[in-house]
Amino acid sequence: MRQAALCIIGSELVRGIIQDRHAKTLASDLTRLGYRVQEITIVPDDGSIVEVLDRLVSNVDLIITTGGLGPTSDDITRDAIARIYEVPLVLDPAARETLFEIVGDRLNEANLRQVMIPEGFTVIPNTQGTAPGFCRSGEIYTLPGPPKEMLAMWHGAILPDLIRLLGDGTLEERLELSVFLTPESQLEEACALAVQMTSAQFDQPLSQMPLWGTRVQLYRISLYLQGSTAVLREQVFHTLEGLLGPSRVREGDRELVDDLYLQLQQKGLTVAGAESCTGGLAAKLLTDRPGSSQHIWGSMVTYAYEAKERVLKVSHETLEQEGAVSASCVDQMAEGVLRLSGCDVSFSISGIAGPSGGSEQKPVGTVWFAFASPEHGTQHVCLSFRPFSRDSVRRRAAVSAILLLEQYIIGENLLDIVSQWQYI
Amino acid sequence: MRQAALCIIGSELVRGIIQDRHAKTLASDLTRLGYRVQEITIVPDDGSIVEVLDRLVSNVDLIITTGGLGPTSDDITRDAIARIYEVPLVLDPAARETLFEIVGDRLNEANLRQVMIPEGFTVIPNTQGTAPGFCRSGEIYTLPGPPKEMLAMWHGAILPDLIRLLGDGTLEERLELSVFLTPESQLEEACALAVQMTSAQFDQPLSQMPLWGTRVQLYRISLYLQGSTAVLREQVFHTLEGLLGPSRVREGDRELVDDLYLQLQQKGLTVAGAESCTGGLAAKLLTDRPGSSQHIWGSMVTYAYEAKERVLKVSHETLEQEGAVSASCVDQMAEGVLRLSGCDVSFSISGIAGPSGGSEQKPVGTVWFAFASPEHGTQHVCLSFRPFSRDSVRRRAAVSAILLLEQYIIGENLLDIVSQWQYI
Repeated sequence: MRQAALCIIGSELVRGIIQDRHAKTLASDLTRLGYRVQEITIVPDDGSIVEVLDRLVSNVDLIITTGGLGPTSDDITRDAIARIYEVPLVLDPAARETLFEIVGDRLNEANLRQVMIPEGFTVIPNTQGTAPGFCRSGEIYTLPGPPKEMLAMWHGAILPDLIRLLGDGTLEERLELSVFLTPESQLEEACALAVQMTSAQFDQPLSQMPLWGTRVQLYRISLYLQGSTAVLREQVFHTLEGLLGPSRVREGDRELVDDLYLQLQQKGLTVAGAESCTGGLAAKLLTDRPGSSQHIWGSMVTYAYEAKERVLKVSHETLEQEGAVSASCVDQMAEGVLRLSGCDVSFSISGIAGPSGGSEQKPVGTVWFAFASPEHGTQHVCLSFRPFSRDSVRRRAAVSAILLLEQYIIGENLLDIVSQWQYI
Repeated sequence: MRQAALCIIGSELVRGIIQDRHAKTLASDLTRLGYRVQEITIVPDDGSIVEVLDRLVSNVDLIITTGGLGPTSDDITRDAIARIYEVPLVLDPAARETLFEIVGDRLNEANLRQVMIPEGFTVIPNTQGTAPGFCRSGEIYTLPGPPKEMLAMWHGAILPDLIRLLGDGTLEERLELSVFLTPESQLEEACALAVQMTSAQFDQPLSQMPLWGTRVQLYRISLYLQGSTAVLREQVFHTLEGLLGPSRVREGDRELVDDLYLQLQQKGLTVAGAESCTGGLAAKLLTDRPGSSQHIWGSMVTYAYEAKERVLKVSHETLEQEGAVSASCVDQMAEGVLRLSGCDVSFSISGIAGPSGGSEQKPVGTVWFAFASPEHGTQHVCLSFRPFSRDSVRRRAAVSAILLLEQYIIGENLLDIVSQWQYI
């Protein structure tokens, strides 16, 4: 695998005055081209770059530098490059011409420094500013720091050059997955296991298997299976599906509610909810999408016992005898809001988010769910979440309600589904 | 000048999957403490850190590392540090105890790696996650990568330690503030202005004024005024209060609902809500606190027109003629839920979260609020949020409802309040 490194130069960056954004853009594009970005170094405009480049030129195949090309005396990137590559700086007549067109008679000594290019390097014209970049194609590219200038050159000149040099077939193929309701550390375990199992099943050495990477988001984890072959990537995906259980890992960049919405749209359904421990979070997630009022009627957040009785007609006896965290209560909540709303489908959630309020029978993390509709009747299930924190129990409960609602609409047996859910 | 370096470890960073934000925060704080940040290096979770640290330990006075402390096999920072400092890794019993409290019986081999600490290093407890950090005070600090964990340790343990070591007593003094409903860039502007104004008013040079730093959280920004004198810090605070308007900046580390809860507890009140565009987010925030069912009855998330009519008895004519985003609708929503719940106080929210659905009269970002109670009658106000995104309009609307509810309970005139709110 080709190695690359980024040098981001700017005193405002190391002083924490401005936020660097170049590194992410460049690293992401280089990764997609199949480079392994080995290091990103941010240094001030003080000559440190010489030492950094000195180290990198012998260690990596490709170097990209940004910044330090301005006309002021502390912009010393061009001198550093010339020194490292042991060539003199020479005035580039075409670049001088272009600069003259921009600056006109105000062209001065300082400006002229900007068109001094290390001998043997190719000039990269700057369509957005005064400082041109320069490169040794495929080896080192030196770009100005201002984002508009840098990005125009990166997309317009450098990416095309790199893609041309790499030729066909070197772009790294990958499979993007979306994972729900799975703590990061559990997903890592599951991925390692899925890769091992697939490698054994297909009699492939582990070194030939896809690599994986994750990006944790608020209500899901994006998972990438990269390299290897399409068949093996697909197989690892299916093994992982088997390990986590149904509907928790999906192909593509899927938001939590995307597949539920497909069902709601296809079947033209309206949904109402009744929430206790999640306090409205399920409804919030369901209405994250613009235009959701077409399918989402609303949700009755009945946090107090009294609200469950008054709005949803949960019986006083149930609450007294079995409590709000019970099959009977969530059944009545789901059926109550179905009647109240006149919707096609309803869901309900009631559980113990903690940190207190748990008991031996109903520890913190116990959450009951029910779903009701004329078509599929009433179904309830109970999940026991690891009680990492109140917030995390509430989040996983709301996510579960949405995943289970989708399965309920499809007509699945929810007990079957949750019995296959591992690592929640 | 003391030299510092930052090592940011994370494979997702060098692959351009996530954007680093640690570097700016740490560099900014270190610069303010008088350090010169000589280098920021971002490397993957693959052992590269050994080489980087090897180079840095002899070149700089202070090293901060973040990332690579998780339980997975590629999190190898602790091994690297032990190797560089030529000490063994030893199990820290206190850290193991804390981890056991969080993870319980599910404590496994991978988890246990997290409490192996290089011998002679001091453990830095992690109040937000499972991986503790460790340090040699004033020399090297090793922190986990997740922002919530890293920032809590940085502000809670490391900054105080560094300030203590620097021995500049005045730097140590600070005033902590909590800021609500203010975009970060606007807060920076407001702080700069407040410092300038106070400096002019007290005839003090800018160099003698307090420094400020911010930490952006999901529903608030923590703001620190540091150094200078107590009088000037207080004055900057009051000037800032004047600039942002009432109840948006408060002394101390205050959660969004803390002051509202003080009111509810003091007066023994129960609250019910009626939400449209926020889709349950206000109720979710109100129930983030354990034990909230004592004061929070619930919230009727009436997303569809029909739900507003059926549950809250909003009149069909109002919805037809004035629409759901109107004074008349929010009045009826608040009064409807007050009747339905029998609570002491109610609130309602209805607005246009976007991205579509706006008009010339009611652009995206227009949100109406009403509050009702037998004691204070019904009051409504309208806010126009900058329509950064659907999510951001919804978040600011929910936060506003909570801040306004508190003011309503106190008996303030809400029109007076919102007319003084700048930069929303």
